[in-house]
Amino acid sequence: MNSIQSLVVIGSGNVATHLAPAFKDAGLDILGIYSRTFKNSKILADKLNANTYESITEIPDSADAYLLAVSDSALTKIVGEMPIVDGILMHTSGSVGLDVFSENIKRAAVFYPLQTFSKEKPLDFSNVPILIESKDKMVFKQLENLGGKISQTVKFIDSKQRKQLHLAAVFASNFSNYMYYIAFDLLKENKLNFELLKPLISETIEKLDTLSPQKAQTGPAIRHDSKTMNAHFEMLNTHPEYQQIYRLISDQIQKLKL
Amino acid sequence: MNSIQSLVVIGSGNVATHLAPAFKDAGLDILGIYSRTFKNSKILADKLNANTYESITEIPDSADAYLLAVSDSALTKIVGEMPIVDGILMHTSGSVGLDVFSENIKRAAVFYPLQTFSKEKPLDFSNVPILIESKDKMVFKQLENLGGKISQTVKFIDSKQRKQLHLAAVFASNFSNYMYYIAFDLLKENKLNFELLKPLISETIEKLDTLSPQKAQTGPAIRHDSKTMNAHFEMLNTHPEYQQIYRLISDQIQKLKL
Repeated sequence: MNSIQSLVVIGSGNVATHLAPAFKDAGLDILGIYSRTFKNSKILADKLNANTYESITEIPDSADAYLLAVSDSALTKIVGEMPIVDGILMHTSGSVGLDVFSENIKRAAVFYPLQTFSKEKPLDFSNVPILIESKDKMVFKQLENLGGKISQTVKFIDSKQRKQLHLAAVFASNFSNYMYYIAFDLLKENKLNFELLKPLISETIEKLDTLSPQKAQTGPAIRHDSKTMNAHFEMLNTHPEYQQIYRLISDQIQKLKL
Repeated sequence: MNSIQSLVVIGSGNVATHLAPAFKDAGLDILGIYSRTFKNSKILADKLNANTYESITEIPDSADAYLLAVSDSALTKIVGEMPIVDGILMHTSGSVGLDVFSENIKRAAVFYPLQTFSKEKPLDFSNVPILIESKDKMVFKQLENLGGKISQTVKFIDSKQRKQLHLAAVFASNFSNYMYYIAFDLLKENKLNFELLKPLISETIEKLDTLSPQKAQTGPAIRHDSKTMNAHFEMLNTHPEYQQIYRLISDQIQKLKL
């Protein structure tokens, strides 16, 4: 097997901004960055001492692999515009299948890092699960090797399972973050500091090391404490949308069997 | 100021089970435990080498303080049944005011540990915020001293603010835990391991050290990626209640300004 040595990165969003430096640190040669927003690709390329391409047609055909780290909505278009290359084409999306690549692209793959990426926050990939897929056995091995350079957890997962995992991740990360947002907003209105909640938030996830989420559930809803739930509902009367969320989730929690 | 040396604990639920041993470890004399469920109070009392009382009338009147760690719904009743004592009466509830104690109880207080408690999971109180309230200055100082024996963070907060904090905590802890439950449930159905999501869940909260929840928001909704949201909605078609939650929270996230 020839391991992947050189890489072109397409995209300059949250995923590209974290993955490209991680690959460089792992010893790969980042040939260049292409992004629809030239300014953003320039910022990333400058950090990595890499080239920037003004047009997708300028991308060199000599790279071992092409990382398509663009938004799901841009992916189909970018795949269609890519010049014909010998290297591996791999996208990084949880919710897009391997079938976004047409049949005549033989070295097609998915390299999905299961993580939440914000540009402003540095990230250690070592415990980020890298979920890979390819129909080509050699490509699969090359991706396994590539993933292993940045993470301890590299696993095969097919497109159907990856989509399920991505959906679960939306609840576990994006929606739980929105719960933090509501808490933050309510505290701000009452001039209370969000810092006070951080030990609680940490403990809520630490409990998952020893208890299932069902066993770990606490609060007024699981205790069927209608008095407190009604008082909370009343306190939210200037936020009808928070009331809706409060009621819907509390109703669901009350259906859990302990 | 006379610091609190001896304690009677009323209750044997999640809060009592964690607080009573923490006080014992801090050098307090736990005189005994009373609980409506004698069996549970016996289990806790045996661990602490303390007495158990079969009836609330048996509670000694000699304790420096009485910790009422019972459910919100039981609190009013228990306060009414308490024998007349000289010691401090303090409850541990986030959502019940100081006014649950009648005016003639002079040494009334609240000792609210802002945390999620599950019996099965041991807990270090050192970074748990202890939020205290009393109209009596001496009692307040005694509680400040008591809180300081188990935690680094002891703060005054009035009943109104405490209720707001408790409401925010329901979103930040109980509701985010329910989001983990949904993720767990969806993965189980697809024979995928919840462990895969743990680095993501950890990172989601680590981001809060450097970013506000609003800045930290990621996912299809904040990207206004309707294609992915519609696909997710479709994937949830055997779970109409998860569909409702998905739609409601996604709609809200889409209203956030970045």
